[in-house]
Amino acid sequence: MSFSQSFDELVSALTCLPGVGAKSAQRIALELLLKRQEQAKILARAIDCAIENVRRCAQCRNLSDSEICLICSNSKRNREHLCVVENPADVLAIEQNTDYQGLYFVLMGHIAPLDGVGAQELGLDILDKRLASGEITELLIATNSTLEGEATAYFLGELAQKHAVAATRPANGVPMGGELSYLDRNTLSFAFRSRQNFSVNN
Amino acid sequence: MSFSQSFDELVSALTCLPGVGAKSAQRIALELLLKRQEQAKILARAIDCAIENVRRCAQCRNLSDSEICLICSNSKRNREHLCVVENPADVLAIEQNTDYQGLYFVLMGHIAPLDGVGAQELGLDILDKRLASGEITELLIATNSTLEGEATAYFLGELAQKHAVAATRPANGVPMGGELSYLDRNTLSFAFRSRQNFSVNN
Repeated sequence: MSFSQSFDELVSALTCLPGVGAKSAQRIALELLLKRQEQAKILARAIDCAIENVRRCAQCRNLSDSEICLICSNSKRNREHLCVVENPADVLAIEQNTDYQGLYFVLMGHIAPLDGVGAQELGLDILDKRLASGEITELLIATNSTLEGEATAYFLGELAQKHAVAATRPANGVPMGGELSYLDRNTLSFAFRSRQNFSVNN
Repeated sequence: MSFSQSFDELVSALTCLPGVGAKSAQRIALELLLKRQEQAKILARAIDCAIENVRRCAQCRNLSDSEICLICSNSKRNREHLCVVENPADVLAIEQNTDYQGLYFVLMGHIAPLDGVGAQELGLDILDKRLASGEITELLIATNSTLEGEATAYFLGELAQKHAVAATRPANGVPMGGELSYLDRNTLSFAFRSRQNFSVNN
């Protein structure tokens, strides 16, 4: 208990933020109360509004304010390309860093039989119908390059094959700016096996 | 613009938190919406409640829910000792790390003539009356050990002298756990000039 109960309660509530411990929570609470009251009020409203409005897009399962999300309902997107990702964070990363212009399908996880996460939980029945409709020509399987992500990708590849839809996967290899000596064994040996022709144009 | 407008607005509002940039704001927003909706609602309520309730304590100028803060109104505190600090964060640090049991006076800043912060802005008129009342026997001047903090301490020392109240200041020296070779010049030379007798008890 410090000098004010509502201050203590704010500090305690702030520790729900990922990466914020007791010390940072105190610092943030003082900052909000002493210098950023208006912005703090806007933050409280934004939290309420997002929790009130945000649901799952009926088409891609991503977060959305309405039945269909802003990406799925955007008529400028290429509706023949469908990119499957594990999480909304992946959609943000792809939108902000690539020129991909197709649609998405968000699994909200990966196949994990031990945790009871199977095809049903990942909405693969919805994806199955989507592929059956014949609208999709390429399924870009962008699950993580982890063990679980690869297992999920394998499953999705089979699904694409069943519907005779072309399946692709982002290229593996040496990250740009990466140093070979710091690279893990799998990536480096894969990159060497998959080496590309290199020509210098004068 | 991503997949949801209220998600984007939440991300934008979260950047008002100190140390939270665009990337962390995205990560926090997804975490709150996907995994911590209940805690997020509690946070929004705590922000509203703190901004609604928190004002300044009429006695010590610290943050408080009522006219007089929880420390000033605590009958178990030693009412003869008054510790002057620059900020509420200093009160928290002293409360959490020392066994100080007296009261506080929070300047909410330090003397800075160029920024127009003088005796009036720091509430020194209130402090003056407090010292005149004869209730205080020791004024612990715990402003920061910076140039501005020292200038403010000098001013407070004069105020104590005027009312014949004993003034003290936290000891300067080598921080516990600190290495001499990393220490700044002023601290090290001061610590050597002020060396203490050292005896080993067998």
